[in-house]
Amino acid sequence: MLDFSIQHTDPSGARVGTAAVRGRRFQTPVFMPVATQGSVKALTQAELVGLGAQIVLGNAYHLYLRPGIELIQRVGGLAGFMNWPGATLTDSGGYQVFSLAPLLEVSEEGVSFRSHIDGSEHLLTPESAIEIQHGIGADIIMAFDQPVGYPADRAQVQEATERSDRWAERCLEAHCGRSEQALFGIVQGGFEEDLRAESVRRLTEIPFDGYAVGGLSVGEPKEVMFGLLSATAPRLPETRPRYLMGVGTPSDIVRAVLCGVDMFDCVLPTRVGRNGTAYTSTGKVNLKNARYQDDLGPLDPGCECEVCKTHTRAYLRHMYKAGEILAARCLSYHNIYLYLRLMETIRERISAGRFGEFAEEFLERGNENGPTDNA
Amino acid sequence: MLDFSIQHTDPSGARVGTAAVRGRRFQTPVFMPVATQGSVKALTQAELVGLGAQIVLGNAYHLYLRPGIELIQRVGGLAGFMNWPGATLTDSGGYQVFSLAPLLEVSEEGVSFRSHIDGSEHLLTPESAIEIQHGIGADIIMAFDQPVGYPADRAQVQEATERSDRWAERCLEAHCGRSEQALFGIVQGGFEEDLRAESVRRLTEIPFDGYAVGGLSVGEPKEVMFGLLSATAPRLPETRPRYLMGVGTPSDIVRAVLCGVDMFDCVLPTRVGRNGTAYTSTGKVNLKNARYQDDLGPLDPGCECEVCKTHTRAYLRHMYKAGEILAARCLSYHNIYLYLRLMETIRERISAGRFGEFAEEFLERGNENGPTDNA
Repeated sequence: MLDFSIQHTDPSGARVGTAAVRGRRFQTPVFMPVATQGSVKALTQAELVGLGAQIVLGNAYHLYLRPGIELIQRVGGLAGFMNWPGATLTDSGGYQVFSLAPLLEVSEEGVSFRSHIDGSEHLLTPESAIEIQHGIGADIIMAFDQPVGYPADRAQVQEATERSDRWAERCLEAHCGRSEQALFGIVQGGFEEDLRAESVRRLTEIPFDGYAVGGLSVGEPKEVMFGLLSATAPRLPETRPRYLMGVGTPSDIVRAVLCGVDMFDCVLPTRVGRNGTAYTSTGKVNLKNARYQDDLGPLDPGCECEVCKTHTRAYLRHMYKAGEILAARCLSYHNIYLYLRLMETIRERISAGRFGEFAEEFLERGNENGPTDNA
Repeated sequence: MLDFSIQHTDPSGARVGTAAVRGRRFQTPVFMPVATQGSVKALTQAELVGLGAQIVLGNAYHLYLRPGIELIQRVGGLAGFMNWPGATLTDSGGYQVFSLAPLLEVSEEGVSFRSHIDGSEHLLTPESAIEIQHGIGADIIMAFDQPVGYPADRAQVQEATERSDRWAERCLEAHCGRSEQALFGIVQGGFEEDLRAESVRRLTEIPFDGYAVGGLSVGEPKEVMFGLLSATAPRLPETRPRYLMGVGTPSDIVRAVLCGVDMFDCVLPTRVGRNGTAYTSTGKVNLKNARYQDDLGPLDPGCECEVCKTHTRAYLRHMYKAGEILAARCLSYHNIYLYLRLMETIRERISAGRFGEFAEEFLERGNENGPTDNA
């Protein structure tokens, strides 16, 4: 079970709160670095603690296939396996089954698929997805759902969403009696406002510990995403955490907080970092761009992180071009630092009742879409 | 110029000393982690300081081709470019030109070759190799030589060695007037004891700051290497540092210290680390081996490093199998820790006049050739 208390709600609709589950607490709005396979790529757990990460996210599909649940159970779950002192959440693997694995059959029962690692056959049902997540033992686990891509046929979306909502009920049933872990439901509905509204209505009749918005940020235009989010998030129970899955850029997060979202995860800061790109206080910096070849300034002049205090853009660009792991380390570190500092600022501004103002300024600067190097 | 003072010489022939160049000091016998392109692979400079590294080694061939000398000069040389507070040494690039680059012509003048990065044509001569190393600005620079592989035709070895020795003289001439950087000569001579002896005789007539033994550990049997080393090293000037290039395993280092060698560099600890292998107090551990799948013990039960205090073999194996950068980080960190602790122990035992005893025990344990997992 998850305790959630909201300390302040900003006039903008943004909320600042505290969540606690199994003795682990985190402040919301929160950004959860992604440790798909049990590691936030290129970073150590000690670095994440130092950076102020409160909760990380693992993936049940990946961890079930490798290293397998039994090993993780033997060491007290994902946090023990990773030696991670903070809170943990696992995604159920619905998204991964439908995006990574060669599908064999989708039925009311569940999904049979081949492992993307060794081709072995597996069946995931709402019940087995929950059982797997019991084994992995994260503090928060997610219902098993069937997301759809963009664009999507209305009839297909409707079928997948109604099935996901029936699966959500089966997930809660399978979870009963395991009250120490919190279980979140996931709203689907594709890109149709009425289907989203129906999914919200059905999901919120089920007493989940929190509610996620899934199936967004899968290729649709930003305005479609925020149109749906602003119609969906406020309809979710005020007293429960709202989690926008897989989103997004710093600006996306600020906009989603305005819609009342409390929790975020995204691979972007580490993925773009490995690809040579930093989010900075003055826009995106893509070190592949030749303009940084002789740039002796820091990666982000407005940043206090160890990387920005230690290295020049020219050195980091050379590391990236030379294929050195240090480039992935430094850029991932800086990007996660920036994301976590942004979340701190967001929480401070909401507490001070001045989040709307901050968001307006932040979005006007258009950090990652506007004055960037366009590289 | 390099100050070198020997504090103790063990009955075994091993020496413990202090070298100082341009205000940077290091204790010998020393292991220099390899930062070929300006980064010790997978580690940060701050980690290397914490691990007790005193001097790192860059490569003139690589740094000349990318990012180029001009940038490195602008930031005060390799140490400034890397933001590395310790001493630095550059290899001249002779070995790399002959092993990595498509050769165009080798003449008395020098070597013309194509860049392995972009195919561009370049000419390296003893004079330009020294000029490049002046630009890179390491504390210690190396003469430009022509090593030979194993096995090698005697006539070819003789030609390459005599040419290398003539090049060595040209290197010293080109270096004159730049006395703040130390210059080392490199003994060649392939796998023929008399050719090695001639190279020593010619080289030691040139007043280098130190003398390296090159062209070993290139595929020859260990006994060939140590036969040549034990005949070569004692003939080098006692008052100058002796540097065995590109060697080796922990046992190789202990054996070479017995021959009176003071300086070492090797890519092994980071390279085998990236490939999933750790040197440990009880032998090599190759995490690819399935026996470690459920092993909840530390990587090296005899080790106090952060990795061994934090993670299980099972977790590290999973990281390796899953392709996570964390595996390369953790194994490289542990291996460099082990090498640097070994060098500390070596220096202590020599100071205590008990190195022979230590070496005998260490080599009997046969750490990396004996009771390993054979994987």
